[in-house]
Amino acid sequence: MKKSLIALAVLAASGAAMAQSSVTLYGVADAGVTYLNGNDNWSGVTSGNNLTSRLGFRGTEDLGGGLKANFVLEGGFNLDNGDGASGYAGAKAGEGFQFKRRSTVGLSGGFGEVRMGRELTAAYNATARYDVFGSVGIGQSRLWADGGVVDASANATAVTTNQRISNALTYVSPDFSGFKVGVNYGFGETTNGNSDSSYMGAGLMYDNGPLSLGLGLERLNNGANSVAVSDIDAWSLGGSYDFGVAKLLAGYRESKVDRATGENKRLGYYVAATAPVGAGTVRVSYNRYENELANVKGKADQFAIGYVYGLSKRTSVYGTYAYIKNKDGANLYTLGSGGLKTNGSQQGMQVGITHTF
Amino acid sequence: MKKSLIALAVLAASGAAMAQSSVTLYGVADAGVTYLNGNDNWSGVTSGNNLTSRLGFRGTEDLGGGLKANFVLEGGFNLDNGDGASGYAGAKAGEGFQFKRRSTVGLSGGFGEVRMGRELTAAYNATARYDVFGSVGIGQSRLWADGGVVDASANATAVTTNQRISNALTYVSPDFSGFKVGVNYGFGETTNGNSDSSYMGAGLMYDNGPLSLGLGLERLNNGANSVAVSDIDAWSLGGSYDFGVAKLLAGYRESKVDRATGENKRLGYYVAATAPVGAGTVRVSYNRYENELANVKGKADQFAIGYVYGLSKRTSVYGTYAYIKNKDGANLYTLGSGGLKTNGSQQGMQVGITHTF
Amino acid sequence: MKKSLIALAVLAASGAAMAQSSVTLYGVADAGVTYLNGNDNWSGVTSGNNLTSRLGFRGTEDLGGGLKANFVLEGGFNLDNGDGASGYAGAKAGEGFQFKRRSTVGLSGGFGEVRMGRELTAAYNATARYDVFGSVGIGQSRLWADGGVVDASANATAVTTNQRISNALTYVSPDFSGFKVGVNYGFGETTNGNSDSSYMGAGLMYDNGPLSLGLGLERLNNGANSVAVSDIDAWSLGGSYDFGVAKLLAGYRESKVDRATGENKRLGYYVAATAPVGAGTVRVSYNRYENELANVKGKADQFAIGYVYGLSKRTSVYGTYAYIKNKDGANLYTLGSGGLKTNGSQQGMQVGITHTF
Repeated sequence: MKKSLIALAVLAASGAAMAQSSVTLYGVADAGVTYLNGNDNWSGVTSGNNLTSRLGFRGTEDLGGGLKANFVLEGGFNLDNGDGASGYAGAKAGEGFQFKRRSTVGLSGGFGEVRMGRELTAAYNATARYDVFGSVGIGQSRLWADGGVVDASANATAVTTNQRISNALTYVSPDFSGFKVGVNYGFGETTNGNSDSSYMGAGLMYDNGPLSLGLGLERLNNGANSVAVSDIDAWSLGGSYDFGVAKLLAGYRESKVDRATGENKRLGYYVAATAPVGAGTVRVSYNRYENELANVKGKADQFAIGYVYGLSKRTSVYGTYAYIKNKDGANLYTLGSGGLKTNGSQQGMQVGITHTF
Repeated sequence: MKKSLIALAVLAASGAAMAQSSVTLYGVADAGVTYLNGNDNWSGVTSGNNLTSRLGFRGTEDLGGGLKANFVLEGGFNLDNGDGASGYAGAKAGEGFQFKRRSTVGLSGGFGEVRMGRELTAAYNATARYDVFGSVGIGQSRLWADGGVVDASANATAVTTNQRISNALTYVSPDFSGFKVGVNYGFGETTNGNSDSSYMGAGLMYDNGPLSLGLGLERLNNGANSVAVSDIDAWSLGGSYDFGVAKLLAGYRESKVDRATGENKRLGYYVAATAPVGAGTVRVSYNRYENELANVKGKADQFAIGYVYGLSKRTSVYGTYAYIKNKDGANLYTLGSGGLKTNGSQQGMQVGITHTF
Repeated sequence: MKKSLIALAVLAASGAAMAQSSVTLYGVADAGVTYLNGNDNWSGVTSGNNLTSRLGFRGTEDLGGGLKANFVLEGGFNLDNGDGASGYAGAKAGEGFQFKRRSTVGLSGGFGEVRMGRELTAAYNATARYDVFGSVGIGQSRLWADGGVVDASANATAVTTNQRISNALTYVSPDFSGFKVGVNYGFGETTNGNSDSSYMGAGLMYDNGPLSLGLGLERLNNGANSVAVSDIDAWSLGGSYDFGVAKLLAGYRESKVDRATGENKRLGYYVAATAPVGAGTVRVSYNRYENELANVKGKADQFAIGYVYGLSKRTSVYGTYAYIKNKDGANLYTLGSGGLKTNGSQQGMQVGITHTF
């Protein structure tokens, strides 16, 4: 009671700063040195190797009766050169800062949360979380990276890269004994009045003590307007179990589309582990990618190991080594710049610092 | 006295946050679902239907003797897809966040306020305020929207769309018994040393109890350098009276330019009303547009009705219905995507949420 | 003790605002009216004439044991029209806000500070500080402005314009009896595996009472990949002495490159002074530029005088007059828009306000 009064006095006395109490400014500054050894050697300073560098504004207002209004505005940037655009499909140098990581407004309460705008898909949230390298840096699982099945329509990358969806309505349920479900509907916003380019997806999560499971389902309706294609479908499954001395994780993802030129299919899986070692955490993963496109079939294996050492709760230093080997003459993925060796392989290292604020 | 001491103790104790007391971070997150029924049906999530989605930074410093230094930096964005560029003529997808809504620095005191930079014109501020839909969403008055009289020079859109002016000096008077005047001079910044493309405008406001009146005058000097045109002139007039049970509002606007191909004139007016109904506010408006261009003559009628329900002082939900009918074979305006029916009409609905922070 | 408890109570009570204690929002809003008299007259509102208009986010975290984590994100903008992109080579209208002024993360302690990202070069920091007009506005020294020796590669502008470097590792030493040294290594990030386009630079500073000295050394390795050029080298030297009634300053800078078409060399120097007059500061400078390029040789003299009057610690008004005269038929520099008179001269005035927040 007395505390509140004092707080109110201060609130009254320090105007502007407190006027900001309705919005929280937060972010991540992550940069490191990357060395890649493939067809050519490449070295440089790269941004967001452990956590994507970002700047965000978010807030929550208590509307009473358990109802809350919420907004999040978050954009990525390249810490290495200050470029404002980063962290989303189609980002180009010089585009300037944008809220492409997340841009939502909505209401939450006992019923869960409804949101409108752009955000990570529920399917991605359900299963990408088992990638121990968090979808960034040379060690990341490329199951959610842009791959073989690329489509020209606006939302097509949503299923193939499957990370974020624009123009979307999202519902996230409350927790039911460890179960949680999220669904997205992304409007196609085409002027022909049908459902072309619209996106539907769902993610189911189960978290109970040491066990965690996730299932993701996605469909992009008749993605291209100018090319005769069917719907694009993707599903993913993942899970982890924390044994204490170590945590084991695994994931699988598959996306498929029928084109005039034949069926295109991408699939892949990974097994991974993390373990506390000293004051830090070792993380290791193996990824397998298999693309069965009409014109290109190929496979690739990827291995990565890293160590993250926390200097504080907010600041860490990290080191990662990764190796990739493409097979069957199809070069599906690289770790970054410099190109693959003639045998389809490339290896690399990243050492850097992550600071959250 | 004791309160101040406590406040000071806290100010001293919480360093960084208080260092921010010189700047206030604020904004609006507004998104909704729009359905349009015209030549085609169109549906999607749209941003800023009730208030333009925006993010701003502003501050005021007391310089003593009644003098203050002020700055405002404010940009719009598309909440539906995270695009940083929004809310100004010429905004393009992918351009990144910019301070195109307002970017000013200046001094204020007993004499009023002087500012430099970019902002809404005084003429717009004086009379656009009677549009009950606030110049946004499907129900907005299109008297300040980009229309028939478009000109190639940098400031030309200032008079035709008449919302904001760049490279400007602005003076706003103090309140004299309800009267207030604002003037803008926008430099043409052409290298030929004359006044081409420069803008002059003024807004006169009278606010006294239930009565409010506004007059706006604008001139763009010899707008185009490559095309032989005369000055572009516009004037607008508006007013409102609050009867308590309802508020009645009306506005008129006209802009004119002589081209080699003949005189071009746009004019229009609206009558509108708001009334408290239940815990919210009903707003209704009728707009009439008449374009008399050298090559296109036409008229259009627009009707809109909406309801805004406040969940709190900062958060509202809203619903709007609008109908537009173009006449005489000239299709002056649409409500949005999807095109007009063959009879020149289109209708639409918007339902959404506005959260200010 | 009691104060801390109260502060903690408030910290607990006012959540969001305090969550921001890890980041400080800061900036500069500077705009003025510029009049230029050259081939044509030109007038307009211009941004950043005394200090570049900017917005930044920075923070420091105490990691214990004297170690700190630090980040800075800072971008420039044009206050006159709200453009988000400003203050770096290659900025284009409409690009949106970017962290091109500074974008760094790193650690500091007794050993000094290490940083990664983009920032002003140590060489620039060591000697550009003697320009009394702070590298901005019509009166600035153009020794660090883009000049005759321009090169196509990514980092080439680093040496010729020599202000900022991307993709860089930076070390700044602690203070040793007034001496301080900074070094930058900017990766070329070319895929050919060699050191093309990489940058190395160092700045040595000595500050002791009224005396200040600075030395800057820079090299860009084999800047262009497609044109046969040698390394680009630059060095600069400067100093100041504060006599109390006035401060005298001087600087010299030279950059050189061998091209197939011959050696290209730019050099120049300035002498300047500041003196407290009334409640403000008078500043005056003379610059001499000499370009000895293979195809263009020329000289220019520049004179500038200005007055800055502080309304408070954070807000100032300023006025500047500048005159430039190009010689030998080579037009090396202009003060801004409007072009040079046929005798190679141009003069101008700037009057404006600077507000820091």
